[in-house]
Parts: sequence; C-alpha cells; structure tokens
Amino acid sequence: MGTKFVSERNLKFLLYEVFDAESLTQHEAFQDQNRKMYDMVVKAAIKFSKDLLFPIFEEMDRKPPELVNGVVKVHPDMRNIMKEFSEGGWLTSRLSVENGGEGLPHMVAGLCDFIFQAANMGAAVYPGLTAGAAHLIGSFGTKELQDIYLPSMMNGKWQGTMALTEPEAGSSLGDITTSAIPTNDGHYLIQGQKIFISAGDHDATDNVVHLMIARIEGAPAGAKGISLFVVPKYRPGTDTDLVSNDVACSGVYHKLGYRGCPIVQLSMGDKNDCRGWLLGNANSGLKYMFQMMNEARIGVGLGATALATAAYYSSLDYTKSRRQGRKLMEKDPTKPMVPIIEHADVKRMLLFQRAISEGSQGLLLQCTKYTDLLMLSDEEDKEKYNLLLEVLTPIMKSYPAEMAILTTSQGLQCLGGSGYCDDYPLEQYFRDCRIHPIHEGTTAVQGMDLLGRKILMKDGKGFALVLEELQKTVQTAKKFESLTPYAEKLGDRVEELQKTVGSLLAVAQEKGAEAFLADATLFLEYFGIIVISWQWLLQGIAAQQAMAKGAKKKDQAFYEGKMFTLRYFFAYELPKTMALHDRLTHNDGLTVDMQAVHFND
Amino acid sequence: MGTKFVSERNLKFLLYEVFDAESLTQHEAFQDQNRKMYDMVVKAAIKFSKDLLFPIFEEMDRKPPELVNGVVKVHPDMRNIMKEFSEGGWLTSRLSVENGGEGLPHMVAGLCDFIFQAANMGAAVYPGLTAGAAHLIGSFGTKELQDIYLPSMMNGKWQGTMALTEPEAGSSLGDITTSAIPTNDGHYLIQGQKIFISAGDHDATDNVVHLMIARIEGAPAGAKGISLFVVPKYRPGTDTDLVSNDVACSGVYHKLGYRGCPIVQLSMGDKNDCRGWLLGNANSGLKYMFQMMNEARIGVGLGATALATAAYYSSLDYTKSRRQGRKLMEKDPTKPMVPIIEHADVKRMLLFQRAISEGSQGLLLQCTKYTDLLMLSDEEDKEKYNLLLEVLTPIMKSYPAEMAILTTSQGLQCLGGSGYCDDYPLEQYFRDCRIHPIHEGTTAVQGMDLLGRKILMKDGKGFALVLEELQKTVQTAKKFESLTPYAEKLGDRVEELQKTVGSLLAVAQEKGAEAFLADATLFLEYFGIIVISWQWLLQGIAAQQAMAKGAKKKDQAFYEGKMFTLRYFFAYELPKTMALHDRLTHNDGLTVDMQAVHFND
Repeated sequence: MGTKFVSERNLKFLLYEVFDAESLTQHEAFQDQNRKMYDMVVKAAIKFSKDLLFPIFEEMDRKPPELVNGVVKVHPDMRNIMKEFSEGGWLTSRLSVENGGEGLPHMVAGLCDFIFQAANMGAAVYPGLTAGAAHLIGSFGTKELQDIYLPSMMNGKWQGTMALTEPEAGSSLGDITTSAIPTNDGHYLIQGQKIFISAGDHDATDNVVHLMIARIEGAPAGAKGISLFVVPKYRPGTDTDLVSNDVACSGVYHKLGYRGCPIVQLSMGDKNDCRGWLLGNANSGLKYMFQMMNEARIGVGLGATALATAAYYSSLDYTKSRRQGRKLMEKDPTKPMVPIIEHADVKRMLLFQRAISEGSQGLLLQCTKYTDLLMLSDEEDKEKYNLLLEVLTPIMKSYPAEMAILTTSQGLQCLGGSGYCDDYPLEQYFRDCRIHPIHEGTTAVQGMDLLGRKILMKDGKGFALVLEELQKTVQTAKKFESLTPYAEKLGDRVEELQKTVGSLLAVAQEKGAEAFLADATLFLEYFGIIVISWQWLLQGIAAQQAMAKGAKKKDQAFYEGKMFTLRYFFAYELPKTMALHDRLTHNDGLTVDMQAVHFND
Repeated sequence: MGTKFVSERNLKFLLYEVFDAESLTQHEAFQDQNRKMYDMVVKAAIKFSKDLLFPIFEEMDRKPPELVNGVVKVHPDMRNIMKEFSEGGWLTSRLSVENGGEGLPHMVAGLCDFIFQAANMGAAVYPGLTAGAAHLIGSFGTKELQDIYLPSMMNGKWQGTMALTEPEAGSSLGDITTSAIPTNDGHYLIQGQKIFISAGDHDATDNVVHLMIARIEGAPAGAKGISLFVVPKYRPGTDTDLVSNDVACSGVYHKLGYRGCPIVQLSMGDKNDCRGWLLGNANSGLKYMFQMMNEARIGVGLGATALATAAYYSSLDYTKSRRQGRKLMEKDPTKPMVPIIEHADVKRMLLFQRAISEGSQGLLLQCTKYTDLLMLSDEEDKEKYNLLLEVLTPIMKSYPAEMAILTTSQGLQCLGGSGYCDDYPLEQYFRDCRIHPIHEGTTAVQGMDLLGRKILMKDGKGFALVLEELQKTVQTAKKFESLTPYAEKLGDRVEELQKTVGSLLAVAQEKGAEAFLADATLFLEYFGIIVISWQWLLQGIAAQQAMAKGAKKKDQAFYEGKMFTLRYFFAYELPKTMALHDRLTHNDGLTVDMQAVHFND
C-alpha cells in the first residue's frame, strides 16, 4: 500500500513557479522570511504528518468516537497530537510574531493545513477548529476573554468549536432558538440544543470552548437577532479551578466517514446553569461568524482537495504495481500481463483525479495568495482582494467538495474489487469526502450565495475583477504557441460566462428571484469549471516557462505530465460547460413550476 | 423514516401502459396468464419484501458476515428467507410450468427481482445467484448432475454461486490458473484460489454449489482453455450423506457496502481432495459463463436501479416532512418554515434521482421484454432480439451502475447532515451501490464490449436495430404536439450517434485499436444517455395517451409528474452528450500517448 499522500514536488511547483510565494517576502510583514524557510516549513509539515497523522488514519476510522458515560472517547493519540500541533507552532502559524505566532503567510500556512488534512482529515480538524475559534476570540473578544481562553486553546489543551446548527435550523441559521438571558454578572444564561458540532465534546482536551450563536431575549426575529457567545464546557471558577458549565453531550453521530473526529449533539442549560459570554456586539453574531465561515469554507474546499489528492496517490500507487491484462494489440495470452497504468482507460481515470486535485490545489493557493495580499495592501487594493475572495470562496468551497466524490470514486474504481474493500484506503476516502458538500453551507447554499449575492455585490465589481484576472492569464498564455489553443478556449468561455450572467439577470427581471436562482447550483458548477481551467492555464504557463529555460530530465517529465493533465482538463472537463450553459440559458422554470403533488406515486 | 422502496403505481405504468405486458399472453407460452395474475404477483413480491426483506435491510449492514472458526456467519433470518423464497416460487419464477416452475415472463419475474433488491439488496443476492447457477446446470448439466443439484438448490437449501475471479485474474479472466486434473472416476481434481465470490460460503444453507471456471491440464492458454465445473462445498457421499469437498473459505472481505451478503476467498484442493464435475464441453467454459453473465449483467443494472429507486423514495419522504427555510420571496422570518420539497433546488435533486431511476426502470423492462420475445419468436426474430440485447446489455449494466452513485449521493444531499449519518438509510444506499460499476465486468470492460464488440457485431446489424427502435419511437412521439420538441431532440442525437460511430471507426482505421477504444467508457456513457432519453420518450407517449383518454385527478398528477420528469431529462441530462460528443469526435490519443513516467511526482 502506498504511503504518499501529497507531492512535495507539486506543492513547490505551485508555491514558487506558479504563485511566486517568494514575492511576499518583499513586504515588510514577511521580510525576515525566504524560500529556504518555506521549504523547511513544508518539509516539517510533511514529516509531522508522516510521523503522527498518517499512521493512524485508518485506525481512527475503524475505532470511531463513542459516548461512554457522558464522555466522548476519541483515539488515545489525539491528546498528544494536539500537544504536538501546539508545540510545532502549527496552531499559531498565521498569527504574527508579535502576537506569539509564527507569522507565516496564508499561502504557506494553508499548504501545511492541506498536508495535515491529506494525511488524516479527522485528526486535522481538531486543531484547525481550535485555531479558527481562537482567531475569532482574538478578533472580537474582550481582553478578559482573551486572557482566559487563548493561552489554553493555543497550547492545545482546550478545544475550540463553532456551534451553529440546531435541530430545527440547519441551512436556515436565522431560525435558531437557543436563548441567552442577560444576568447582572456579565454573563448570559444559555438554553438550547445544538447538533452536528464537530469536535464538540471529547476526552483529548481538558475543556471545549464553543463559539455559539444564540438569541438574546427580545432580539429581533431572523438573522438580525443572532448574537455570538463563548460557551465553555467547563468555566473558570472563583479560584481558577474549572467547574462544569452545564453543557451536556447528548449524543455522538454515527457517520458515513470523517469518523476520526466526533460530531455531537449538545444540550445547554438543562440545570439552568449554562453561562455564555457575549463576543463583540449583541445581534451581530452572524456577521462575526461569517468572517470565520469564509475562512472555514475555504478550509472545506482545502479538505476536499486534500482527500482527492491522497486518494489519487493511493490509486496511482496501485495502478503501477497491479498487473492485469495486456496491451490491446498483444494477442498472445502467454505474454506477461502489464501494470494496469499501461491501459488507456486507467490513465484516463488517473488523469481525471489528478486534473481535479492539482487544479483545486492551484485555486487554493490562489485564494490564500489573495488573502495574504488583502492583508498587505492599501485600502483600494484591499477592496479588490476582498471582492475576488468573496466571489471565489463559494467555488473554492464547492468545486473540490463536489468533485472529490467523483475523483475518490474513480480512484476506488482503479482498484476494482479491492477498491470496494477496506484493505485499501480508497473506500475510506470515498466515505470521508462525502461530508464536504454538506457542512459549512451545502452546495445549494453556495450556489445561491454566488449567483444571488456575490455576482451582484458592489454592482458586479467582484465578478468583473475575477473575469479580468482570467483574461490576463489568457493573454499571457497566448504568448506560448503550445498554450494558444487552450487560451483561446478559455477566452471564449469567459465571454460566454459573461453573457450567461446577462441572460440570467434578464430572467431575474422577467420571472423573479425564484426562477433566477433555480439553477444556481448549476451556475456554481459552470463557473467552477471555468475557474479551474484558468488554474490549469496558469500551471501550463509555469511549465512552459520552466521547459523553455531547459529542465533536467526528471523535471522535464514532470512538466510534460503537467501539460498532459492540462490537455486532459481542456478536452474532458471544460466541455462539460456546454450542457450547463445550455441549461442556464434555457430557463423554463421547470423546477419552480413542478409541485410536490407531482412527486406522489 | 419512509417505508416505501418502490412505487407499485409506476411499476404498473411501465408494465402495462408503456410495455403492454398483456400482449405476451397472446403467445402460447403465456396463454393461461393475464393482467390480474401479474398484478397479484407484483403485489405478492411487494408484500414478501415488506414482511421479510426490508425490515432487516439496515440490520444486515450493521452486523455484517464474519468468519468464525471456518464458518461464515450471516444474518440468522437468511435461512428462513431462502426457504420462503423457494416456497413462494420466487426461485423458479422464470422456469416453465412443465419443469416445475411458475412460467412467468421475464418482464414480470424481473420486476419481482427489482422489488426484492430495492427492499434489501444483500438478502436478494443469495436466491438470485442460486437461481442463476441452477439455470446454468439446467442448461448444460447432465441428467445426473441435474438430479443431484437442482432439487436442493430450488428448495433453497443449497446456495449457488459463480466462481470466476482469482487473485491474479480479475478483469482478465483468460489468465485464471485454477487447475482441473481428470481422474478415471468421472470427476476432476480441482486446485486453486478464488476471490470476491458472492455468497461463496455461509451458514444459511446446508451446502454451497460453485459454478467455477478452471483450466484442464494441458488446455490452451488464455480464454480458449477455460472449462466450467460444478464444485460443491460438500459432495454427495456414497450413501447420499454429504462429505467435505476440500473447499475452504480462507477469508471474508470487509466491504464498503453490500454487507448483507458475504464476499469470500476460497481455497480449493489444499488436501488434494476437491472434486469438480465438468459442465458441458471442455474448454467451452467462458461461452457458458457468458450466457449467465449477460443475465447477470442485466441483473447488476437491475440492482443498481433498485438501489437508486429505494434511495429516491427515502429522500423524497424526508423532503416532504422536513421544514427548513422559506420561499425566496418571503422575507418575514416569523412566518413558518416550509417543507424543503418546496425549494426549487431540492426539486431539482429529486427530479435527478427520479429521472435516472424511472428511466432505468424503463430500460430494464425493455430488456426483459426483448428477452421474452427472444424466447417466443421464430429464427429471424430471434436474431433480432438477441442482437438488440447484445447491444443494450452493457448499457443496462453500466448506466444505472454509474448513475446510482450520483443519484444516491443527491438523495443523501437532500437530507443535509442527517444524510451523512446512519439514522437514515441514504448513507447505506450510497455505500451499497458502489459495487455495481465493479462486479460482473467493470464499466471500462462494458465500454470496450460495447464499442469494440457489440457495435461491430454482424456488420453492425445490432447497432442498426437499436437505432431503428429509437427512430420508431421518435416517429410515434411526433404525433403528440407536446412531445414533438423532445422527439426532435432525440432524433438529432440518434443521427449524431451514428456519425460519431463513423468517426470512431475512422480512428480505428487510422490509429489502431488502442486509440479507437481509448474513450470507450465515454462512448458507453454517451450512448447510455441517448438510450435513456428514448425510454423517457416512450413513457411520455404513454402518459400523453392516458391523459388524452381522460385520467382521474390522482392519475392526472401522476402523468403530469411523468411529463415534468421527461422535461427534466431532456433539459438537464441529454445535454451532457454535448461534452461527450465533443471528446469522442476529437480523439487526439491523449491517454494513449501519456506514459507512466508522466505520473511521477
């Protein structure tokens, strides 16, 4: 069985050759950094993953968390892993040096998260959520809250979570009913139920700190009346001892995959003694949450990309060693069988996986680079990078999430019957990755966000900026003869995309919002394929530049492999936009007109 | 949780309104039968499934078969289920009355199998395999073999299997090495290993009878040297007592799904005492097996269709009761939430599932009807129906198998986080159905079979016959105003399909077999979508005819639902042929030219 879950060579290709991470070190914030340092960080993340995470990837699945006497038991290594995450500086990688962090750019820190998730998604979620929750307390919490919570979270002893979903409010967050009643002691009394809370209770940390949305008594109905609270499992007592905060774990879900990390139900205030501390202003909870949620959405896409990548290398490994059948022209049955990677259809299945994985890795780097530039730039550029991220986030979340289902499935298929059995990890990747189109906003929610909000935002400025970036790449690619046909294809699609949005806006005017957004999921897919073509063109440019300079033999094969994969994407994936475009421009209101009664019988 | 796994209304629509099953009763073989009888059979199959199969569908998954002291322990109900299958006449439903069977047409018997698989695929496989194996012994076995094996198989006390795959010979059956050494006592001594044998060993029957392929000492290499044997787990002794036949179960696989039925590894002849009896002629084994395999391939498509159907009804049930969010125009958050089936995107996800499920059900009935007509018709028509089946079988096998992964995934998505957890059966359907693109010939094997053999067979006569059937439907549909646009679309696609094959044949001439077949999997998908469009047009014709006659209110909603689903298929699914056509007609040899070295790094 293979042991490769990421390609260091490919990560460096993306980091330096495509996205020029070194250029960041020209900025004051990163002036003490250099390529050598980034190389070491990436190497360390891979070593960390190989030593601690990958070896228990399957074990954490086979022995999933269980609720025993009110305590969620997780894999015994998780306590040490949380400690090592903290000691390795991985929990604070993005935090500035002044604030006690490593001050790494998002590009590099994001790659490390990608490596951890590729090695063991379940294990990587605990520290990821903790860092995200700590970031939110750091951004909006009072000094007192920060002093109480951040040290223990950052040293990996306390878990952080996002506690949003309720039994009657999943996608419809405005409908939450968990209540917060003010007291005279600076805290609120919390009462309610939360479901599907990742790492929401477990025995690998001494405490769990929930960033929880609730409704303050008398707050307006809907999304406008939601506030954000810090609700710990144990609260600091008068003499610093921790006392129970009346947050009970009422159940742990039995899931299809992603079993290394528990997802739990929580019940707050059964004894009327659950205290919560308001974070930031009352009734602004969703705004704060959305800040974290955008990061979290990119994180979901990152996780899906990571699983697609690990599954790809696992199936690739199998196809190189498994012998079966002969080349089609070989009719002599006494000749030895060939490794199945020799068969065209197997190469097609590998190319599919690779094109999605490496294209999505490109988009991930693109988004983290924009995040870095957003932080580094002045006011006007800030708006630009912010808008680019607003438009690309739903795509970064959903494209890999939806595609990983298909790529891990093809990875499994490469193994035939063995892929269906748990002697190989493919079936686990296939199960694990099915969570991504669901959590942090389903694909449908992302589609509505993209078409219904992001495209229209600031009079379409964000959308225009994305198109501009794509066109810039098209122009650059046209300078390379071997890239010109692909540049032209993408150029055509970009123009078509613009017209498609125009025709959808006409539908909005004529038929209203429901018809306009009826196929938002298809629009998301359509836009996503175009965006990944862009990423492949960028990688093609880098490969051409490297080959023009004269690459070593081994590198030459790598760059040629990139070009084959680019060709694959343009030949097999980009044409899928044809059907989507056809539907998006022939909106007949079918799914609006059909009624529930037509689904009877 | 829903309890519906098939729609009796829809089955009757297909059986009578689309495929006119009653017309079969004009033939002598079925002259004693009538619609009332068929209705009773279908009703009985549903009742049987509701009583015995569906209630343990989840339980059989949660407590999968385990190998304990050399014995594979399966669900304790399975022994009784096998008995009931026999007593209900379900094991012999297709067998003629003279031969002790029920003499049902394949159309009706196939529908019953479909119902069983929809209720509990794992459980339905045991009797299904037994009936298939018995059928093969009935066709090619000596009277002695028939007398020994058929009674105990037909009464459900002995399991039947197909034992083909070996560790080094999966898709490449010609490479099997299991050996058969002739003796002077009428039997052969068998030695070898088999893997992935469904129901290959278990404690729900008293014996297991393997139809096993092996190579007689000195036989030619490759597929031409394969013979078929009856190899029981226990063989009848001199005094009719059963004695061990040296077939050991060396392992049971831990699978992603399909856990109700064991898949095992077998080791034959460890003590040099495994006896096998030749079935039919030496070195003709693959020919016989293919007879059963074509049935088995349609059976796999049937199983995939059944799972897609059950998953659809399960998700439909959820969307009708789960309330979440409000209609897009409703901005008042105090208004009650609506059932999610009111949301356009949810309707789209339901339509997707339904269009695939009901379209595939149509093709299943189409294939079983051809099977019946093949049996009933004279020599010339026999060739026609045989060729139609040859061409359609890889599509019937693969289209539902590949699509069920996507439809069960969308079914799961309809439930959001709940779909990912095992409180609902969607995650199980998603796991169970992943076997279908693998067993009985992977999708790649089906694609090569279709493009490389079936299209060319008898100078393309089978292909021409299929096109003719499609064009006939197009012409009929054009008589209905509301169907004309769809008929035209399908007509265009049929012409395009013909040209696409022409251009592929040119590739074969110019570039050889490898380039010709490189995208055979895509061709299979392309042809499949066109075939399912045909099925929807047939259903549209039946719906229009019924509505023209004046349907009752409830029926009217059913037929309108059919029309919406037809429209969905033509608007969302048929356009997918555009990308496939684009690729198939731009064959640049990409996957032939790319080499293993390009996948390094």
